[in-house]
Amino acid sequence: MNIVQPSTPPLSPELVARFRRIVGDKYAMTDAADIAPYLTEERDLFHGRSPLVLRPGSTAEVSAICKLATKHKIALVPQGGNTGLVGGQTPHNGEVVVSMRRMDKIRDIDPASNTMTCEAGVVLQVAQQRAAEVDRLFPLSLGAEGSCTIGGNLSTNAGGTTALAYGVAREMALGVEVVLADGRILNSLSKLKKDNTGYDLRNLFIGAEGTLGIITAATLKLFPKPRAVETAFVGLKSPADALKLLTISQNEAAGSLTSFELLSELAVDFSVRHGIDIRDPLAAKHPWYVLMELSSSRDDARAALESILAQGLEQGIVDDAVIAANLGQRQAFWKLRDEMSAAQKPEGGSIKHDISVPVAAVPDFIAEADAAVVKLLPGSRPVPFGHLGDGNIHYNVSQRPGDNAADFLARWHEVNAVVFQIVMRMGGSISAEHGIGVLKRDELPEVKDKVAIELMRDIKAMLDPLGIMNPGKVL
Amino acid sequence: MNIVQPSTPPLSPELVARFRRIVGDKYAMTDAADIAPYLTEERDLFHGRSPLVLRPGSTAEVSAICKLATKHKIALVPQGGNTGLVGGQTPHNGEVVVSMRRMDKIRDIDPASNTMTCEAGVVLQVAQQRAAEVDRLFPLSLGAEGSCTIGGNLSTNAGGTTALAYGVAREMALGVEVVLADGRILNSLSKLKKDNTGYDLRNLFIGAEGTLGIITAATLKLFPKPRAVETAFVGLKSPADALKLLTISQNEAAGSLTSFELLSELAVDFSVRHGIDIRDPLAAKHPWYVLMELSSSRDDARAALESILAQGLEQGIVDDAVIAANLGQRQAFWKLRDEMSAAQKPEGGSIKHDISVPVAAVPDFIAEADAAVVKLLPGSRPVPFGHLGDGNIHYNVSQRPGDNAADFLARWHEVNAVVFQIVMRMGGSISAEHGIGVLKRDELPEVKDKVAIELMRDIKAMLDPLGIMNPGKVL
Repeated sequence: MNIVQPSTPPLSPELVARFRRIVGDKYAMTDAADIAPYLTEERDLFHGRSPLVLRPGSTAEVSAICKLATKHKIALVPQGGNTGLVGGQTPHNGEVVVSMRRMDKIRDIDPASNTMTCEAGVVLQVAQQRAAEVDRLFPLSLGAEGSCTIGGNLSTNAGGTTALAYGVAREMALGVEVVLADGRILNSLSKLKKDNTGYDLRNLFIGAEGTLGIITAATLKLFPKPRAVETAFVGLKSPADALKLLTISQNEAAGSLTSFELLSELAVDFSVRHGIDIRDPLAAKHPWYVLMELSSSRDDARAALESILAQGLEQGIVDDAVIAANLGQRQAFWKLRDEMSAAQKPEGGSIKHDISVPVAAVPDFIAEADAAVVKLLPGSRPVPFGHLGDGNIHYNVSQRPGDNAADFLARWHEVNAVVFQIVMRMGGSISAEHGIGVLKRDELPEVKDKVAIELMRDIKAMLDPLGIMNPGKVL
Repeated sequence: MNIVQPSTPPLSPELVARFRRIVGDKYAMTDAADIAPYLTEERDLFHGRSPLVLRPGSTAEVSAICKLATKHKIALVPQGGNTGLVGGQTPHNGEVVVSMRRMDKIRDIDPASNTMTCEAGVVLQVAQQRAAEVDRLFPLSLGAEGSCTIGGNLSTNAGGTTALAYGVAREMALGVEVVLADGRILNSLSKLKKDNTGYDLRNLFIGAEGTLGIITAATLKLFPKPRAVETAFVGLKSPADALKLLTISQNEAAGSLTSFELLSELAVDFSVRHGIDIRDPLAAKHPWYVLMELSSSRDDARAALESILAQGLEQGIVDDAVIAANLGQRQAFWKLRDEMSAAQKPEGGSIKHDISVPVAAVPDFIAEADAAVVKLLPGSRPVPFGHLGDGNIHYNVSQRPGDNAADFLARWHEVNAVVFQIVMRMGGSISAEHGIGVLKRDELPEVKDKVAIELMRDIKAMLDPLGIMNPGKVL
């Protein structure tokens, strides 16, 4: 996908040299081969172009870059691990890329206060590991955790599989350090859980996808490390039954219920068929599955999980279930889940949605969307799966086997329109956790409150009057 | 305290009549006796004046009020339950009061999605009760819950005794409806836990103390109702030991630890001495106390609490402890805690602080503040108590017995300065949960990041260019 935008003026050699001096020769790249990895992303959906990739090593360098960019009206695209799914991190129109990966220091870790201050380029998995080393949990967890960065996680307000218990990325940040478009440095780093001194600025930048400033560091919440984690794979008849099981689980386990994933039969089939070394943990097939996990600081997780499943069986909600007997089995359950996106590729074209609706509306949403999509494209195969506990479903649709993939993908926006109409009627969101980027930018004004769009434009104009921060994204 | 500000122009009778027509005769008050309750607050610290109190019954009426106010540059002060502690809800300079208490409908309650949509005037206790009726918990809890309102709770980002487990008010709101200064209605009500479609606007208005718009409704998170609540009253030697007990408790109980309050001996003494029917639950006196509570959806809270206290005794951290044997005892423990503010009154003048520091820094903070305050005012008596789990201490100082109260209170800002200096050195906040209002407005620029203040001013100018929304508060 090439995104056409108002053309960025070419960079003069003098300006390139001035940017280069800020970060040092080694960290300013102009060579096509060096730059290439920053221009594309894993799914090969977006292709950008850029004359210059800068890799600053400090907040002061980021500030100097922004000052110079403001002076000469040079557009910047901040980039973390380059794992975003909506094209937000791609320089679609020749912008300068500011890669944050070199800023990878953990500035402070304070287990007694349950906080950790990370620079933007810290890889999520590294943050998780560092927390574990001091006997704490940093709970954010998602498929890309081996390469995505804290800065990207916050800029896109990442969700993932633990949001049910711990919230989304926004809720894990106590404070942020941000470089504004004009180079000013906002220092709102804070270890405080309670601080009512003025307006909340942190949440303006979290989830803004780099369009209002560049997050350079953040103070993150840590949590007690669970002593016991118990995971079950459950077969059942319908999303409605899964919803009943969710309610039983929350009543029984409350905050100990850390994941509750709904998986359609086809999503499981695809994983088993195309993943390496993946098998269905249950003996027979079921129309729907739930992958659920309880985490506890005490030794009661197993008893709670057994009690939940017993109630489910008794009430005819659960048809079959298996509890992971050891870490290997637990990892196998999650591997089946984690392979779901990749396993759709060999099945041909896949049209993706990342929607949320009120939790109680998920069963109706799936039924209505299935009917509407199959009516629009007979033979197409909905493959819904996702975070039922958050009302967040990755409502993906695979093509009819044998059809031409390009023809199918050409209907992307038509399918979107049908699905989004149902989402909006139910008070839902067209982007639950992946953001807007360029992929959904043009749909945003249609689904968002008019006054909200006006305020977003005002905020953008206030913080980035020249429009140099990740232009063409979100708005 | 009378706050002098640029004078508000007097309202013409025609304008009063036009405001009156919006809400109806019955709900527009100009009579001094009718207006009086809206001008003062419980502690009698602030006295305002106003020509007109409006009590709108709908969002449309609030919008019409704001439109008319914008047209004629009339300043407005939104007011909820009038329980704020920093003068934010008081019309210090003849502004029109917009009392939100009539907007008290619960628009929707959805236990399956764990959400509840309340209008701004719903009293906190009513919201708690309605949640309980559908077998859910709305966890926000604070001293004023019988009269404070959801709109005020969100506008001040209230904290309270359950923030340790459930977060502050900000974290309990999924969406808000706000009337802007010019009368536009922002509809960001949402039942969604995950929604990444654009900038986060909700958090701009939450905690803004009515200076950016009037919150008219909010969608709130509900939680599973705990089946078991266990409460202990603990005697120990020092804040450092209390901090060790907190760490043990979090490791053992994680999210089930719903309250962890640190109480100084003098705070307990005052409560016992001046409260009605209050006694110290422990046989002997201790230099410090902890009131802690565990809430669980299963029957394990008692065992967890006993295990925590056993570890504390074994490690020499806990000197004595008693677990409430029944609801009556539990309520008695909390009554002792809840009376602490009121019990300082009979002891003469009291200079108050509502500070937070990183949790690990609380023991040092108390030691340093005690030394500095007693050095400044020999014989004065620090009475610290508060939410250790959040690093939030109500660091109050009572006068030396027998001294003149007015002379003591005249040193208010001097004492503040000494305490705030220690707070700032430790990376803390001068207002953890009460807000800025007028009480701390003049200190804010001294303690806040310079760029943060600049952005706050820009946001204020963007959303309220005429300066009619709660003028003179916060900024």
